[in-house]
Amino acid sequence: MWTLAKIASEIGAKLVGNAEKVITGVGTLQNATDTDISFLANTKYRQYLNSTSAGCVIVSPADLAEVQTNALVIDDPYVAYAKAAALLYPEQQSSLGIHPSVVVGENCQIADSARISAQVFIGNNVHIGDNVDIGAGSIIENDVYIAADSRLMSNVTLCRKVQIGERVQIHPGAVIGADGFGIANENGRWLKIPQVGSVIIGNDVEIGANTTIDRGAIDDTIISDGVKLDNQIQIGHNVFIGKHTVIAGCVGISGSTRIGSHCAIGGGTGIAGHIEIADGVQLTGMSMVTKSIMSSGTYSSGIPVEPTRDWHRNVIRYRQLDKLNDRIKQLESKLEQ
Amino acid sequence: MWTLAKIASEIGAKLVGNAEKVITGVGTLQNATDTDISFLANTKYRQYLNSTSAGCVIVSPADLAEVQTNALVIDDPYVAYAKAAALLYPEQQSSLGIHPSVVVGENCQIADSARISAQVFIGNNVHIGDNVDIGAGSIIENDVYIAADSRLMSNVTLCRKVQIGERVQIHPGAVIGADGFGIANENGRWLKIPQVGSVIIGNDVEIGANTTIDRGAIDDTIISDGVKLDNQIQIGHNVFIGKHTVIAGCVGISGSTRIGSHCAIGGGTGIAGHIEIADGVQLTGMSMVTKSIMSSGTYSSGIPVEPTRDWHRNVIRYRQLDKLNDRIKQLESKLEQ
Amino acid sequence: MWTLAKIASEIGAKLVGNAEKVITGVGTLQNATDTDISFLANTKYRQYLNSTSAGCVIVSPADLAEVQTNALVIDDPYVAYAKAAALLYPEQQSSLGIHPSVVVGENCQIADSARISAQVFIGNNVHIGDNVDIGAGSIIENDVYIAADSRLMSNVTLCRKVQIGERVQIHPGAVIGADGFGIANENGRWLKIPQVGSVIIGNDVEIGANTTIDRGAIDDTIISDGVKLDNQIQIGHNVFIGKHTVIAGCVGISGSTRIGSHCAIGGGTGIAGHIEIADGVQLTGMSMVTKSIMSSGTYSSGIPVEPTRDWHRNVIRYRQLDKLNDRIKQLESKLEQ
Repeated sequence: MWTLAKIASEIGAKLVGNAEKVITGVGTLQNATDTDISFLANTKYRQYLNSTSAGCVIVSPADLAEVQTNALVIDDPYVAYAKAAALLYPEQQSSLGIHPSVVVGENCQIADSARISAQVFIGNNVHIGDNVDIGAGSIIENDVYIAADSRLMSNVTLCRKVQIGERVQIHPGAVIGADGFGIANENGRWLKIPQVGSVIIGNDVEIGANTTIDRGAIDDTIISDGVKLDNQIQIGHNVFIGKHTVIAGCVGISGSTRIGSHCAIGGGTGIAGHIEIADGVQLTGMSMVTKSIMSSGTYSSGIPVEPTRDWHRNVIRYRQLDKLNDRIKQLESKLEQ
Repeated sequence: MWTLAKIASEIGAKLVGNAEKVITGVGTLQNATDTDISFLANTKYRQYLNSTSAGCVIVSPADLAEVQTNALVIDDPYVAYAKAAALLYPEQQSSLGIHPSVVVGENCQIADSARISAQVFIGNNVHIGDNVDIGAGSIIENDVYIAADSRLMSNVTLCRKVQIGERVQIHPGAVIGADGFGIANENGRWLKIPQVGSVIIGNDVEIGANTTIDRGAIDDTIISDGVKLDNQIQIGHNVFIGKHTVIAGCVGISGSTRIGSHCAIGGGTGIAGHIEIADGVQLTGMSMVTKSIMSSGTYSSGIPVEPTRDWHRNVIRYRQLDKLNDRIKQLESKLEQ
Repeated sequence: MWTLAKIASEIGAKLVGNAEKVITGVGTLQNATDTDISFLANTKYRQYLNSTSAGCVIVSPADLAEVQTNALVIDDPYVAYAKAAALLYPEQQSSLGIHPSVVVGENCQIADSARISAQVFIGNNVHIGDNVDIGAGSIIENDVYIAADSRLMSNVTLCRKVQIGERVQIHPGAVIGADGFGIANENGRWLKIPQVGSVIIGNDVEIGANTTIDRGAIDDTIISDGVKLDNQIQIGHNVFIGKHTVIAGCVGISGSTRIGSHCAIGGGTGIAGHIEIADGVQLTGMSMVTKSIMSSGTYSSGIPVEPTRDWHRNVIRYRQLDKLNDRIKQLESKLEQ
């Protein structure tokens, strides 16, 4: 049972109000009820602060004056909310042990504290560490290593030899370690290049639903500690992603590209192969990256929508840019005369 | 056995020709055989109408004169074709009941009329309504609700607490209810925000292969009645999609965005988070939407391909637009003098 | 055990050095050890050639002079490397026969030489040819045909009636034969068009992880011999792809489009429906194709990233192109006077 006193103590916030108030869930400022805790982190929602029905709100000191209910005061309410929500909603776990429907290969090391749900397949020589939780229908191929406290949701695929760090979370449909796209052309036909590297996933990485990370062609594909990947991302063979970089959904990164640490890559971005992105680069959504970016900063491309009639006209004008330039040149030379 | 008389009666069309003619399949005007029914809905194919070998064609009254075979005449031949094809090709169903290989958790309500194929996992407290059909390898986590007459194809994943309406169809590899991409930055590291909302899918929704719909962060992600989603679409947490909106493949919609009713979104489109798209908006393929669109109509962006040499030159000119503008200014002021 | 003499003989290269040298693996020029074979195919890496620790390098005759270790000399070192790696790393196979956890329907023909891993489902009337290998968790629906020597990795889904050629490789999470996106509008509601065609995959095709290929609406979707598809590609119903075409990750191809032979399509490209792409067309990454391309050559679109501030300014200028044009016109007519 979580009283405000206990939550305040756990998340390191100052409590203003009823210490014995019991909280059972979370809610938005607009929809929270009396047993919910809410928070204000985005000024857009400040208008709802003084009328919320929440049992408590997490706010920064500057916003405390507006609060009409109990408050937890802290400098970063969003981080504090993350911690409070984690207390109130412990993750659902699979049952302890190995479900009878699971098929396990030879020579596996599976911790007694591991939880392996139904319809799972585990190949040979697989290591599954302490407290690892493997969701239903997941497939773990030969020689995979999963370190302690990691979690595979349902229907995850880990291909042969893939290594997963500690406290990693992998969402359904993700495929880690499929063959990279390596082909060589021999007289018009494409010959497959065996993909003999693997994928190494660091600690505290999160991998979204239906995201794919290809194994290396010779050396390994590497996802560093603390990287957070959204859904439907494609990461080619031998890509390196530096620590604490976040990547939004539907991004594609071609082979052998090196992404720095603490980058933030917007959804739908495409990044060419064999290039380098410096630490601290931010790319807005749907960016097209064809060359290395050697210094931190924010980069963008793409032209947002306009009414289709205007778009048609602008595309035509765009294609005339060279002629436009010529006409200006002519004007300049005429005027020069 | 489907005679033309029976088909005409079922789809509400006027029969011109042999009422006893038996039809066993469908075909295109070019490839149909004598036992197939075909249709003309796109003027591009009118050239094949008078030479088709089809046993019958569905046409609008205006096209009847050209028909050399039996005809079913109706104002909207495409809708009529859809109905005729549904008669001729009833969906293949899984076997009645629960396959012995299925693992079912505790406290589930599964209708006697449900069909659950092999290698399926069903968690605890799951409700499966009348005539629901669940394809092989699908994973249904705890507390999921599936209303009557819905169908999961093979290898679908429904995460905890997801609610599915009536007559919903979900294609293989789709993942409904994975965690949204919610993270908070604490001193350079990313902290996960527990995603405690769910996903609510309305009635008559279709969800394509490998499409992902994330659960809400606090409130729910909502897909309204009659929405049709193609393959490989990514829908972020707390997105709302209005009734009868259709979305083509590879679209990404970021978190908390609200899409209106009766919209049509072209393939590969990206839509930013926390914005609003009005009812009746049409977006052409590969659109980039960064701001709300407040009125219905057709919107576009993107510049179609050109030969790579021209593209190089135009991109350079594009980057000189500011200088071009300056040169025009100079010309204007010179001429003013 | 692979001596250089044996490798040279198998791949048709000229051996310069110790014929009895035993090779056990592959490595990059930078990281290879004394028992590895390496290669030089990209001039970018020539700098590492004379200092490599590799036990052998595969090089073209022109590069032989630089080699300080054993060498295999051949005109195309990349193709030769592909062949050498295939010798050194034979594919891991599933165990011979059918794992006891597999569920097999009625009336199937499964070759004695087939290998079917755990947790697989095989429907009715399925044909599985000689030496076919089916990975764990894969789902093969009714009436599927898989020809000899093909391989499904883990968690692949083949929908009803799909036909797979010889020596095809399909990576995890791929879905072949899901319904195409066929809908007809009846009074504002969308009616499903039954998708009664299938998918036919030729010989020597490779299909990447989480790629989706939809079944045809009436006729079939066709992927010709030797086509190589990367991950997360979406191929709509009734698409035709010609022989030996390669498609990189995250490409979307809309329905009824016909792609020629020997094309190369860059990652993230989107191709509209009902158009034609000629043989030998190359599209660079993130291309937007809205019309048919009738002659071979290289085509591009999209504007690469720039610093966000510049991007903002250029987008504004882009939207003023029409006005810019008007101003030039005015200047021209003034000057004319």
